This record gives sequence, C-alpha cells and structure tokens, in this order.
Amino acid sequence: MKSPKHDKAIVLLSGGLDSATTLALAKEQYQSILALSFDYGQRHHCELQAAEQIANAQNVPKRVLSLPLAEIGGSALTSESIDVPKAATTITNTTSSETSIPVTYVPARNTIFLSYALAVAEVESASAIYIGVNALDYSGYPDCRPEFIERFQALINIATKKTVEGSKIILEAPLVSLTKSQIIKVGVKLGVDYSLTVSCYDPDANGAACGECDSCHLRRQGFKEANVPDPTQYR
Amino acid sequence: MKSPKHDKAIVLLSGGLDSATTLALAKEQYQSILALSFDYGQRHHCELQAAEQIANAQNVPKRVLSLPLAEIGGSALTSESIDVPKAATTITNTTSSETSIPVTYVPARNTIFLSYALAVAEVESASAIYIGVNALDYSGYPDCRPEFIERFQALINIATKKTVEGSKIILEAPLVSLTKSQIIKVGVKLGVDYSLTVSCYDPDANGAACGECDSCHLRRQGFKEANVPDPTQYR
Repeated sequence: MKSPKHDKAIVLLSGGLDSATTLALAKEQYQSILALSFDYGQRHHCELQAAEQIANAQNVPKRVLSLPLAEIGGSALTSESIDVPKAATTITNTTSSETSIPVTYVPARNTIFLSYALAVAEVESASAIYIGVNALDYSGYPDCRPEFIERFQALINIATKKTVEGSKIILEAPLVSLTKSQIIKVGVKLGVDYSLTVSCYDPDANGAACGECDSCHLRRQGFKEANVPDPTQYR
Repeated sequence: MKSPKHDKAIVLLSGGLDSATTLALAKEQYQSILALSFDYGQRHHCELQAAEQIANAQNVPKRVLSLPLAEIGGSALTSESIDVPKAATTITNTTSSETSIPVTYVPARNTIFLSYALAVAEVESASAIYIGVNALDYSGYPDCRPEFIERFQALINIATKKTVEGSKIILEAPLVSLTKSQIIKVGVKLGVDYSLTVSCYDPDANGAACGECDSCHLRRQGFKEANVPDPTQYR
C-alpha cells in the first residue's frame, strides 16, 4: 500500500524526456503539482510547446516565466553565433569533474532555474521542488550532478523565510542516478507519452530532431537500450 | 602599500546606500567592474535611476536585467496589494533566526540575484561577485546573513563550468558585519555620494523618502550615529 501523498510540489518542466518522467514521478508522491517552465531564449524554443502538451497530458497546471539568459550569453543554446556540436564526442558516463563540458552548457542555468523554483515554492507553500537532472547519461554539465543538488538543498535550508521558520522545502532529483534507458522504463510504466517530448538542442522549424547532437544521441540510445520504440521524429 | 588589484568583479547595485558603498569597496580591489542591477517590478522603481547615477558617478559600466519576480509575488515590495509597514517594529540587531521576518521580504530574492551574478561572472570571466548584504542593522531577511553567503559560496564552487575547471569565483559581502553607521563612515572615506542613493521602500513619485519604513529608519539612524549629515530628501 502506498503511503499518503504529500501536499504540493513544484516541478521544473523543460519539455524533454527527463522532466516529463520527473513530472510523472512527482504526481505519484504529491496531491498538488505546479509545473514551471522557463522561456530563456533557448534555441530549441519548441520545447516550450512540448512542455505545454506534457502538462496537459498529465493534467497539471503550468506556469511559464521569461528569463533574460540570452542577454547573458555564453552558450550555444542561447546564442546563434555558437553552433550546436553535431558529433556526440562530449558525452560522459561518469560523474568525474575532469570531463570536458560542451558549448551547450548554459552558465548557471540550473542555479537560476532552482532559484525561481524556490521563490515559487515559498509563495505557493509547496514542500518540494522536483528537477529532472541526471548525472549518468548526460553531457557533463556541473549543475546536473548529485553534489550540486546537495549544496542547493543546503542553501535552501537557510535561504528563505519559510525554511528559516521551520518548514522544509525538499529538493528532489529522482533521476540523478538512473541511466537514460532506466528513466524511459520508469516513464513507460507511469504512462508518460514520450512522443510529446523534445530532446534535440537544434530542432528544425517543424520540431523534427537533428539526431546528431548530444541530447539526440543520448535519447536514441536510451530507447534502444530500453527496448522501447523511439517515437522521435528525426529529420 | 596596497597589493596589486585583481582583474574583474561583478557588483550587485540596487541603488541603495549599502550597494553604493560596496561598489566603492570593490573598485579598491578590482581593476575592472561590471555593476549589475535588476528591474524586478519593485515598488521603489526609482532605485534603478539611482543605480544608474551611482554607476555614472563612480565611473563603472552597468547592466540591467529584467526579472519576473512581481509575477511570483508574495512581497510588499512587488505587490501593490500588500502595504509597506510604516512602524519600524521589525528591525533586528541580531543574526538569530528567531526574529520575525517582515512582509517586505521578497521570496528567494538574493538567491535569484546571485544566480544571475554567477552566470554573468562566468561569461565575463570575473573572479568575484560583490553583494552589499548586512546582517547587523537590517530587516531580518534570511538571505542577508553570513550563513547564506557561505552556503552560496559552497554552491558556486561546484555549480559552474569555470569553477569546476579550477578557477575561483569569490563571493564578497564586505558589509555583512558592519553597522549602518560604520558603512556610512567607510563610504564617506571612499567619496561615495549618498545623495544619489535611495533606501526607502515606498518613495513618492518624486523619489522623496517616506521616513517611516524599516529601510528609512535604519538609514536615518545610521547617518545620525555616524555624525554625517543625512542628504536624504524626506517628504
């Protein structure tokens, strides 16, 4: 028998495979969910439409906040002047900090995203924040690793009125130690419709995936290893 | 003799007394400065013009980022529906977490501000971030205390490509243990023009201070204790 559900959680929903799975996992644990997406000038802007469809399919309310990350720059994902790498040479399968971090890294992105999630959690009286980071089949981004989650949790515990006054806001990263194929298997069990999700960093105008960036490579390999038909539309 | 200056620092510049002093302190230590201000829907929007004037007076470049904090709400400073308290009953003179935190608290504000400062520091190859928080003569905000600064520094150390690859980004909070009068004395020595700064949470259309909110109370008392003429225009 399942334990009773907690009250409310904020779920970061990018529109990708990982966050769609995370949303389904959060729904198992929390009575009420608010999905949070960010319009940050991302090249793969169509992921925002995907996030909308995923939230509708999973029947949760959703909010979008617009953030000025493209003004800050420094990433292939927010700057047309830096190309998204095609070769999947940067993929790691380790949590070592010695790996090379690709140009698709967006400076301080998850720190910024979680800061907003924290503000929203406080105002909405939510007791958890879910983020779909993964440090196994990933691109080596420093802000996707378990130590990042641990230190952000330590910050949360003393950073807000709510937490200082004794309430907890728990940062949950349920995918952090799963492989992509394990994530897909979990999602399939929970009924996640992966045909709605977008992983590609550089999709075309119709949303078709390039099939060649890190993110496409990890996704394609994940479906293969999970023995689940890949619903992605490649161009 | 002074030690040679470091390269570049990002300074959070709100337009208030503390951040104007912090900017002057950072200039003593760093060759190059970028001041960073945030338009976050604050009630005291005129502080942004003050920040502009302070940056000009101190001859440093400045950038403004627009953040959707008013959409998140939960504060008298971003919501017209919550009044700014007039009685200065909430002022603390302790770092205890048992103090009552007033409605002028903005959920996760400094966490959000520092997240952006971190992104900008990384892109601009800056090695320090300055923030003018103060935990002595302050309103009891949790994200102004030394432990908040320490935990954010711990986060910085593992959160970005730059820091993971071995470069440091130091979070400096030079005012954290000073009284308001000590801050004013430091600023006067460094030539800070406090007539340009705005502290009031609820100024009128001409920028005149209310003289009654926490922030006005602390400022007024600081000038008195420092024996420095108060240049503030009260209404």
